[in-house]
Amino acid sequence: MVAHKQRGVSYTDVMFETRLATAEDAELIATQRRAMFVEMGESDDARMAAMVVNFIPWVRERLKSGTYVGWLREEDGRVVAGGGMLLMDFPPHFLDSAAVRAYLLNFYVDPAFRGRGYARELLETAVGDARRRGIKVVSLHASKFGRPLYESSGFEATSEMRLWNDGVQPD
Amino acid sequence: MVAHKQRGVSYTDVMFETRLATAEDAELIATQRRAMFVEMGESDDARMAAMVVNFIPWVRERLKSGTYVGWLREEDGRVVAGGGMLLMDFPPHFLDSAAVRAYLLNFYVDPAFRGRGYARELLETAVGDARRRGIKVVSLHASKFGRPLYESSGFEATSEMRLWNDGVQPD
Repeated sequence: MVAHKQRGVSYTDVMFETRLATAEDAELIATQRRAMFVEMGESDDARMAAMVVNFIPWVRERLKSGTYVGWLREEDGRVVAGGGMLLMDFPPHFLDSAAVRAYLLNFYVDPAFRGRGYARELLETAVGDARRRGIKVVSLHASKFGRPLYESSGFEATSEMRLWNDGVQPD
Repeated sequence: MVAHKQRGVSYTDVMFETRLATAEDAELIATQRRAMFVEMGESDDARMAAMVVNFIPWVRERLKSGTYVGWLREEDGRVVAGGGMLLMDFPPHFLDSAAVRAYLLNFYVDPAFRGRGYARELLETAVGDARRRGIKVVSLHASKFGRPLYESSGFEATSEMRLWNDGVQPD
C-alpha cells in the first residue's frame, strides 16, 4: 500500500478518484438517479424513462451554472458511486441568515462496490463543501436504506409535511 | 348578512378582503414571520431583529420577480392574517416531471382573529394557486400548532432529515 494522496490513490492494482461532475456527466447522473429509485422499489419503466428525459437537461444546466454540485467516484476508469448537492434559495431564518441551503440528492453506490464506506465518504465530501461555502443547513430525503448513515452523521428528522396536489402519495 | 363576493365581502359592519401581497408588503410579511417564530417559543430579540433585516430585502426581491407569492387578509383596513408560497427549483421526479415545487411559509393569524378559519382559508388559497400553476408538490415545515390543520388538509410527514453544519439544532 502506498500513502494516500488527494486523488488518484493507488493501492495494489486499483486506481480510484473522486472527481467533480461536469455538464458532460448529466446522463450518467440521471442513470444513477434512476438506479436509486429502482432500488427503492419503483418498477414503472415508462415513468423512469420520462424522469430521465426531464432530469438530464435540468441537471446539465445546473452543473454549468454551479447550483448543482456533483461528485463521482471512479475506479479503474469506471464510475462506481456518486452524490449531488443542489444549492437552494431559502428564506433567511433566525438561526441562519443566509438565503442558501444545501439539498443532497442522487447518492448512489453501484451494488458491487457497497460496504466500502463510499457513501459516507461522498456524504462527508458534500457536507464539507457546504460548510466551506458558509452554508449552515444541509437537508435531504432519506430512503430507509440511507437513514442509518444520515443519522450516524448527525442528521435529524424534520417537521416537513407534503401534499401531492394530484392525490398521488409516494411512499 | 349579504351574499359573499370574491372580495370586499360585507357582513354586519366588517369589511374584509384577501389580497395578493406586493413588494410594498415586505416589512409587513417580515413582521408576521417574526411573530410566528416568537409564538413558537423563540425569545431572542437580537436574533429576531437580524432575521427581519435579512428577510425584508430577500422577500421584496422575490415578490417583485414572482417567485414568492403572498396573501394578506385585511379587515377594516388592517392586515390580520397572511401566508406565503415560495416557488422552488426542484429536480424532475418520476412522480412529478416539473422542476418547480411550492413551499409554504409565514402562515400567521393575529391572535385576536383566531378560531375563524382564516388559516385554513389561506392554506386552501395557496394550494389552489399551486394547482392552477400545475405544481404537484406542496411542502412546508409544520409547527406543533399548525400540524392538525395540515394533516386534515391532506399533508403527510416526509422523510426529510437535516444537519446544522454549525451544530446548532433548532426544535
